[in-house]
Amino acid sequence: MSRYVADIVALALREDVGPGDLTSRCIIPVEQAGRARLRTREAMVLSGLPAAVETLRQVDRRIIFTHLAAEGDRLGPGIEVARLEGPAVSILAAERVALNFLMRLSGVATLTARYVEAAGGLSAAVVDTRKTTPGLRFLEKAAVRHGGGRNHRFALYDGILIKDNHIAAAGSIALAVGRARAAAPHTLKIEVEVDTLAQLGQALAAGADLVLLDNMSPDLLREAVALTEAFYAPTPRRTGLEASGGITLETIGAVARTGVDLISVGALTRSAPWVDMGLDWD
Amino acid sequence: MSRYVADIVALALREDVGPGDLTSRCIIPVEQAGRARLRTREAMVLSGLPAAVETLRQVDRRIIFTHLAAEGDRLGPGIEVARLEGPAVSILAAERVALNFLMRLSGVATLTARYVEAAGGLSAAVVDTRKTTPGLRFLEKAAVRHGGGRNHRFALYDGILIKDNHIAAAGSIALAVGRARAAAPHTLKIEVEVDTLAQLGQALAAGADLVLLDNMSPDLLREAVALTEAFYAPTPRRTGLEASGGITLETIGAVARTGVDLISVGALTRSAPWVDMGLDWD
Amino acid sequence: MSRYVADIVALALREDVGPGDLTSRCIIPVEQAGRARLRTREAMVLSGLPAAVETLRQVDRRIIFTHLAAEGDRLGPGIEVARLEGPAVSILAAERVALNFLMRLSGVATLTARYVEAAGGLSAAVVDTRKTTPGLRFLEKAAVRHGGGRNHRFALYDGILIKDNHIAAAGSIALAVGRARAAAPHTLKIEVEVDTLAQLGQALAAGADLVLLDNMSPDLLREAVALTEAFYAPTPRRTGLEASGGITLETIGAVARTGVDLISVGALTRSAPWVDMGLDWD
Amino acid sequence: MSRYVADIVALALREDVGPGDLTSRCIIPVEQAGRARLRTREAMVLSGLPAAVETLRQVDRRIIFTHLAAEGDRLGPGIEVARLEGPAVSILAAERVALNFLMRLSGVATLTARYVEAAGGLSAAVVDTRKTTPGLRFLEKAAVRHGGGRNHRFALYDGILIKDNHIAAAGSIALAVGRARAAAPHTLKIEVEVDTLAQLGQALAAGADLVLLDNMSPDLLREAVALTEAFYAPTPRRTGLEASGGITLETIGAVARTGVDLISVGALTRSAPWVDMGLDWD
Amino acid sequence: MSRYVADIVALALREDVGPGDLTSRCIIPVEQAGRARLRTREAMVLSGLPAAVETLRQVDRRIIFTHLAAEGDRLGPGIEVARLEGPAVSILAAERVALNFLMRLSGVATLTARYVEAAGGLSAAVVDTRKTTPGLRFLEKAAVRHGGGRNHRFALYDGILIKDNHIAAAGSIALAVGRARAAAPHTLKIEVEVDTLAQLGQALAAGADLVLLDNMSPDLLREAVALTEAFYAPTPRRTGLEASGGITLETIGAVARTGVDLISVGALTRSAPWVDMGLDWD
Amino acid sequence: MSRYVADIVALALREDVGPGDLTSRCIIPVEQAGRARLRTREAMVLSGLPAAVETLRQVDRRIIFTHLAAEGDRLGPGIEVARLEGPAVSILAAERVALNFLMRLSGVATLTARYVEAAGGLSAAVVDTRKTTPGLRFLEKAAVRHGGGRNHRFALYDGILIKDNHIAAAGSIALAVGRARAAAPHTLKIEVEVDTLAQLGQALAAGADLVLLDNMSPDLLREAVALTEAFYAPTPRRTGLEASGGITLETIGAVARTGVDLISVGALTRSAPWVDMGLDWD
Repeated sequence: MSRYVADIVALALREDVGPGDLTSRCIIPVEQAGRARLRTREAMVLSGLPAAVETLRQVDRRIIFTHLAAEGDRLGPGIEVARLEGPAVSILAAERVALNFLMRLSGVATLTARYVEAAGGLSAAVVDTRKTTPGLRFLEKAAVRHGGGRNHRFALYDGILIKDNHIAAAGSIALAVGRARAAAPHTLKIEVEVDTLAQLGQALAAGADLVLLDNMSPDLLREAVALTEAFYAPTPRRTGLEASGGITLETIGAVARTGVDLISVGALTRSAPWVDMGLDWD
Repeated sequence: MSRYVADIVALALREDVGPGDLTSRCIIPVEQAGRARLRTREAMVLSGLPAAVETLRQVDRRIIFTHLAAEGDRLGPGIEVARLEGPAVSILAAERVALNFLMRLSGVATLTARYVEAAGGLSAAVVDTRKTTPGLRFLEKAAVRHGGGRNHRFALYDGILIKDNHIAAAGSIALAVGRARAAAPHTLKIEVEVDTLAQLGQALAAGADLVLLDNMSPDLLREAVALTEAFYAPTPRRTGLEASGGITLETIGAVARTGVDLISVGALTRSAPWVDMGLDWD
Repeated sequence: MSRYVADIVALALREDVGPGDLTSRCIIPVEQAGRARLRTREAMVLSGLPAAVETLRQVDRRIIFTHLAAEGDRLGPGIEVARLEGPAVSILAAERVALNFLMRLSGVATLTARYVEAAGGLSAAVVDTRKTTPGLRFLEKAAVRHGGGRNHRFALYDGILIKDNHIAAAGSIALAVGRARAAAPHTLKIEVEVDTLAQLGQALAAGADLVLLDNMSPDLLREAVALTEAFYAPTPRRTGLEASGGITLETIGAVARTGVDLISVGALTRSAPWVDMGLDWD
Repeated sequence: MSRYVADIVALALREDVGPGDLTSRCIIPVEQAGRARLRTREAMVLSGLPAAVETLRQVDRRIIFTHLAAEGDRLGPGIEVARLEGPAVSILAAERVALNFLMRLSGVATLTARYVEAAGGLSAAVVDTRKTTPGLRFLEKAAVRHGGGRNHRFALYDGILIKDNHIAAAGSIALAVGRARAAAPHTLKIEVEVDTLAQLGQALAAGADLVLLDNMSPDLLREAVALTEAFYAPTPRRTGLEASGGITLETIGAVARTGVDLISVGALTRSAPWVDMGLDWD
Repeated sequence: MSRYVADIVALALREDVGPGDLTSRCIIPVEQAGRARLRTREAMVLSGLPAAVETLRQVDRRIIFTHLAAEGDRLGPGIEVARLEGPAVSILAAERVALNFLMRLSGVATLTARYVEAAGGLSAAVVDTRKTTPGLRFLEKAAVRHGGGRNHRFALYDGILIKDNHIAAAGSIALAVGRARAAAPHTLKIEVEVDTLAQLGQALAAGADLVLLDNMSPDLLREAVALTEAFYAPTPRRTGLEASGGITLETIGAVARTGVDLISVGALTRSAPWVDMGLDWD
Repeated sequence: MSRYVADIVALALREDVGPGDLTSRCIIPVEQAGRARLRTREAMVLSGLPAAVETLRQVDRRIIFTHLAAEGDRLGPGIEVARLEGPAVSILAAERVALNFLMRLSGVATLTARYVEAAGGLSAAVVDTRKTTPGLRFLEKAAVRHGGGRNHRFALYDGILIKDNHIAAAGSIALAVGRARAAAPHTLKIEVEVDTLAQLGQALAAGADLVLLDNMSPDLLREAVALTEAFYAPTPRRTGLEASGGITLETIGAVARTGVDLISVGALTRSAPWVDMGLDWD
């Protein structure tokens, strides 16, 4: 992942530091040493350390970053996350970008943890979507894992998800699944997005490995689970079921209790507010 | 700005499309044409069209994008924002990234508009901060303008903001301002961040062009305004005053009424939830 | 895929054309028009047109490329593949790089077609490996499809393939499969590489979706198929079997007849000689 | 050359590792150390170490690579080429790309050595062409040197080679050579490609420094050598002669005995099969 | 600034070294160590060390560069500026590019120092313009500082300079200044370029923070200063005055004595000849 | 060359325009059209049009650039070079960078023309060196051609120039030339730099194709020519002679009359002042 982290960090530094930090250049002697502590300012699940470390590294390789907490740690407010030591002008130049990564990504991890908890510890996994911040896809997917969630496919290239456009183009769910099975790498499962139980039946008949149940109520989801189990009875069902669409902290518990395997939640990345962190100078 | 937009769009497409959209490649004939309408799914202030257009362009130059609304427009739910026409596989490949830009940036514009309204139409401008999403700085700054806010400095290279580290390094506010005035381009104003009225007095004496009043209550802000006016009396005060720190939709009205010139609000970019938009296929 | 094509084409042009084609610059008037026909010089399966077209486009957007054949076409010697028209100096500058892509990639497609034919039209698919030319992964994978083969996973990020190092680190096949199932995106199948029938049994028991049978003789492969069918009897077997390791044009027929589902052949990309093509000027 | 190596390695890692090695991430603890030996699996001339080392370095700077053999070494099967030590997940992530470089480039060096040997130790040098793998030009040119061959011009920018298009544009060989002599850097020799002895005569009269004799039989080549010596007699001939076109391992000996100075062989890079190497883990 | 330096150094090395230094590769053993001293060959103000150091670093991280002088130092001829130690082939490969940076940038610093001296030590600062070498903007701006000059705005994004086109588009100086004040970040001063005293009056009335007096004679400049002081009397004038246009070493003294605050001189970067430096090998 | 031009233009625009032209954005309506004429403001030899055109293109593809003069044209002052039409904000954003390229490169062409004229129309060619502005190598080399000069090698990769370090490493001129002849591409001439007639004799004996006579007086150069002719007598001399080192407009005539073939002049690129050009708006 390091190449991707390096690229987005370079972009972030170009836009925030660019040709240089004018204020510090004018005022602070270039040789002055600095020491600072990175601290949480509210409770959070920590994420984003590699991006923060890479930010410091790109600004000045001489900055020493000592980890005092790890990605995925549940931290209270006021906890020391790391110590930084190095040229003061360099730490100041990197500070904002490093914090922006940490506050955004820890925000995603923290919100994910709340969803996972609200899902009630049942077998249903909370998974993310492709509604991620442009440029931060892999970092936000890692943040979801740090918060206890699981990752859906990362991108268009590593999963097959057949939607209505694909079904329309192929003529039917069966034909769409057939084309995918014939042409896609055999290492990928085939998932079909359905709106109705009738479509679910067609997807099962077509041999879909996974079915995404879009915007269904808990009642309908429960029926979908039953229908799928009936399809496979007496053997255990082999098609995974994923609930999706407008699921909130309030509704996820009910959804989890329907027996679906996966619950995908766009809000993990689209609605996560940043958590607060800061640098305290010694 | 186009170079910056092109770079972040390229990064976003690399992470979402990469070597290609497997599902569409397996199922949809490459020559099939597609038409879709981009629609709002809730009320919003629109922002992000250039990034969306660039996304489509980088995926396939043959996609035609017809604008039906402009950046900064206040739109209700269900409004058609644009029409897209081109190869179906290309529109599908670009859809998610284009929407991610639009939903994020319109979210920032929409929240900014709420803050501007809450500030009550007084002379105090609502301004952004450097707490922006890594890689999206210039797009988010534009979104703030679309929402009726104003931009603070864009980065470390286009403004002088003297903070406690700088003051400590220089020895005093007066010395820090002096060093900046001696060394920075004469085209930049010099702003000093202060926590107390005593520091404000020093900043005024040092000839600061702008003072950032950090984390002060409305009462204290009102005193700061009075002190500054007294400093310049009988001529009009020439040092701009900026309130900053933890200002919310609930408190911004009171802050605006203190007479400060600028109110900087990190929440514009750190707490803006995405608004909902979608592509409806013909 | 276009971004990846653009990147490798840019690299290839930088190394072959760099600051310019000295010979043509000295001798040929810059405004002289040229016309040429791209022709096969031996029988082949065609592949690589997008890279050739991108090469011409990067050198000079004014070159017109008219397709007379399509990717995947089986062509005899002397067949016209395309016509080129444009500034002579530009066509000359692009010629070698465009031909290098076409000759290499059509070579891969052509060799793949021979393997597919040798596999005898049985249900076993001929698939590629990750032994591809650095920088040409996606183009060579497309060439394999043009030749009638199928693609294995594209990279380390879009498939799970558990090898001996992973098994050793986890402690057993069952534990390795368990870890992958718990942590990998649910959209990916889990494949295990085994050397013996005993390991195959463990992989089946662990619920592997796919098993790679490494370096097994046709007799052993036949036993592996039987063992797997017995494991699932009386229902149809649900674990895919892939033969791999040192398979040649001579041996692939026997391997295909063992009943495995997939035969991966490194030689498709590692041993494919270039086929011959050339540009004939009018 | 290091910048070029870094670029192609980055491209190769992006396509093979991209956002990360999923299998290893799920299964192998990130702190687990690994040790492996890089070994030949057949006889070969070694080439490609700098690309392999750069691959490891880009994946993880902590991997230690200890050379046990050098570029250009003639090695038997089973020989240890290097030892690797570092985080197991990093070595696994880099393994395939590093091997792909080594197997491809050692393949070129090995085939070159066979051509050089077949040329019989005569004064004729075996030289490469511009028919190289896109992106690997400089690495393959180095591999040719490791195999005992010599390099022709690297690209269009560092040599003058006048072909039929140039002659046609100029009107005659004499005019084409004249234009090149007038306009090209004086540090470059001027080479003319000819098909007949008549053209050779014109090239000599025009003062060509080098003549490429295209697709001539050994008998014709012998005549060309004689004609050139006669042209210069009684002084030694000063125009170098290069045989080119369809030369194979079977015919190169006869070509070498004609007295030409150089024999360019496209097969060195277009037909070289990869040699086999592997990583054995301790 | 380091990212910008790294980019231009990479470009410079790509064009000068590219795939490698052929002469050294053919002749000098790769393991041979080298030592050299970097020396001035004429009197100069030193600038460009970071670019030189970055050049060496990009060629070979093993080269050790020991500083014996600092940026901004006034040096006589024959002074040792640095010692270099490392692989001889690497120092030779980097030598020309490193010297090109140093000779160009020290040339700018040296010429700036002459202008500053000619300005006579008065309060008027000598400032640069945007007439800088493409790709070297930030390095040349630093060279101006090393020579005792000050920097004008760095670019179009960090300053407001209203010229005739802007005035024409807005309708008047007052309207143009008004638009800028309403829309630009409040951290930037607003400068207006004027040709006449009448325009100067309008700019003062519009509240311009700075006025650029274009192509005015010393007499006219003196009137402009007087007019501005009268505008503000009895308080001190608060609008900065910048003289610009065709100022030479011969005229700058007279300009400085007019009482303007700033004198911008395009010649600092457009007319600076390189100074001479060289590498002496031990 | 277009890739190189695109890269340096992108760098120049990033540093001058970056996130945008603030002044124009605040004041000029985005849809306002503009027309301007590019004019010389002094006599010059024109160079740099491709870089100027690329600059406009990268800023806004809608700008139309109509050529009224060509590269290499000798122009008086006040001559119209081109007309520009397009969005006013875009032309304004590109103006400075486009002019910086044109003024710098036409400056090089103009100075070259003066040197060529001073050389007196004799057979000696005026050639450039590698003392070029970092990033502008190929553009400045083209400017030298526009001014009537010729190009020396472009870089370290396309020519062999044996200097004292190489001679020292090899042990003698003969050994150094021998190594180069054995290892360098046969398409490159071998040049040796010498300080004395004794060294010249060794270089001739070693069969050098070219000899660079460093820092020799016209008298010594004349002796060198005589010595070389004597070496080859009675046949015409075949080793080219290049005078180099500190040659000025005053001395080049005398140098040219010595009979050397080439005179390399670092001043063409190191000392060329910019010529003046400007944009006049309609």
